[in-house]
Amino acid sequence: MTFEQFMEHYKQEIEACMKRTISATSSDQKLEQSMMYSLEAGGKRIRPLLVLATLIAYGKDPKLGYETAAAMEMIHTYSLIHDDLPAMDNDDYRRGKLTNHKVYGDATAILAGDALLTKAFEIIANDINLPATTKIELVQLFAKNAGVAGMVGGQQADILGENKTLTLEELESIHQRKTGALLTASVLSGAIIADATKAEQETLMKFSEHIGIAFQICDDILDVIGDAVKMGKKTGADFDLQKSTYPALLSLEGAKQALTEHTTAAKHALGMLDIDATYLLGLTDLIALRDF
Amino acid sequence: MTFEQFMEHYKQEIEACMKRTISATSSDQKLEQSMMYSLEAGGKRIRPLLVLATLIAYGKDPKLGYETAAAMEMIHTYSLIHDDLPAMDNDDYRRGKLTNHKVYGDATAILAGDALLTKAFEIIANDINLPATTKIELVQLFAKNAGVAGMVGGQQADILGENKTLTLEELESIHQRKTGALLTASVLSGAIIADATKAEQETLMKFSEHIGIAFQICDDILDVIGDAVKMGKKTGADFDLQKSTYPALLSLEGAKQALTEHTTAAKHALGMLDIDATYLLGLTDLIALRDF
Repeated sequence: MTFEQFMEHYKQEIEACMKRTISATSSDQKLEQSMMYSLEAGGKRIRPLLVLATLIAYGKDPKLGYETAAAMEMIHTYSLIHDDLPAMDNDDYRRGKLTNHKVYGDATAILAGDALLTKAFEIIANDINLPATTKIELVQLFAKNAGVAGMVGGQQADILGENKTLTLEELESIHQRKTGALLTASVLSGAIIADATKAEQETLMKFSEHIGIAFQICDDILDVIGDAVKMGKKTGADFDLQKSTYPALLSLEGAKQALTEHTTAAKHALGMLDIDATYLLGLTDLIALRDF
Repeated sequence: MTFEQFMEHYKQEIEACMKRTISATSSDQKLEQSMMYSLEAGGKRIRPLLVLATLIAYGKDPKLGYETAAAMEMIHTYSLIHDDLPAMDNDDYRRGKLTNHKVYGDATAILAGDALLTKAFEIIANDINLPATTKIELVQLFAKNAGVAGMVGGQQADILGENKTLTLEELESIHQRKTGALLTASVLSGAIIADATKAEQETLMKFSEHIGIAFQICDDILDVIGDAVKMGKKTGADFDLQKSTYPALLSLEGAKQALTEHTTAAKHALGMLDIDATYLLGLTDLIALRDF
């Protein structure tokens, strides 16, 4: 399977798994529609694909990771819904579509986010293909990386950092939590399901941290040079808010240089492991070389 | 230990457990302060006390339920924070204190709620006193009852039901999810930790459903006859929004009659079980006989 076939095939599997899970719930229809609206709003599904690519790298059946991958995408999606709210970033569009609250209203958008986060833990716990000890490890990993010590803490730090000039260290600390934590959890969840050793998990964590920073640098660069139509949202937004960004701190050329360094370091980490890293390498390039 | 001593002692244990868990997190201080602000805003801690009372009823060490009880209170607290937001009920006060978003702002309040929900699953998964299989059962139970099929679905249905006249069945369906689901999960989580049989769990579920309805009827009655100072929030709010309530559907006397019937039925269910139901009976009276 080529990398493109890998992407296409498993994107469909993940989307089918998410749809199955939501429509299995018997509750309020508007709320489920709101949840599905954002789950179906697209995106490259990088996080769930990292789960499956890690499983495949260890020669495991990727089916073992479908529920975990779907859970990860639900956590990512809930964070976008809440992030777009008027009380947060106040975005009307994401990926060229109206944001959740613009379609369903703020109250339903808050609840849809809450429901997706809750559902993520539910589908991990309900996964019939994994033993209880593995599932508990996954709940621990997801909760730690999505919560106050991870993504949510990063979102808060990001808000507090607006209109301030941050150092590169402060900027990286925020992004490691806000963006990096879920990417790390994606890779490590695949490693946990594949029974990777602790030492291997350490190396995969280094890989994840580098792609997390690369991801953010790339986002910041795209925000400067990106094209409004391609991104599907207003560009230059980070400059409007006087946020610290990599290009602002390092210049555009410096940011591109840092992007290359982190991408190289990520690939170097993969090279330390006795795995078939083909798809993980493909995802690294996908993350680092988005449209420029 | 008298019922009053039980309440006082375990309220403190639960509060200490919550505080320990939050301060163990190394992240953004403002976010943790916001989380603790609402966790410390008081209340009778009925849900976590139901967890521990159920354990005690089965002769188990209540310490086995501390983390689960704390997790339950965190889920309840997150739901209050999000419910009070301007986009939802827009409440400025709860229990006589400013609501979370009035103190920390809407963005932090949204994130504090998200972080508390995530933390709840984390502390269940991290509980060193319970086996993985039990913890997975607890995650399943909490996620199901707090999510789209439970509490969050009930909140959404409640919003959609505003300004509409509901039948008694519709009203009960909403409250079973919005309020009842967490009360049920509290009792059942105690039963799961205590290794109660499935048949016993069924009976305890009936008990929970009756106290859930009793809880809501009591809330509605207090809203009509309650005293603003005692409640610490504006009364008559449900009438302002033209919400369907038990007194509106059944008259005040009819609502009081229904409250008695559900309380009696709850106690009857407890009587079917070979357990020491002292504290569960005490909590039933506490739920049903609040200040009138």
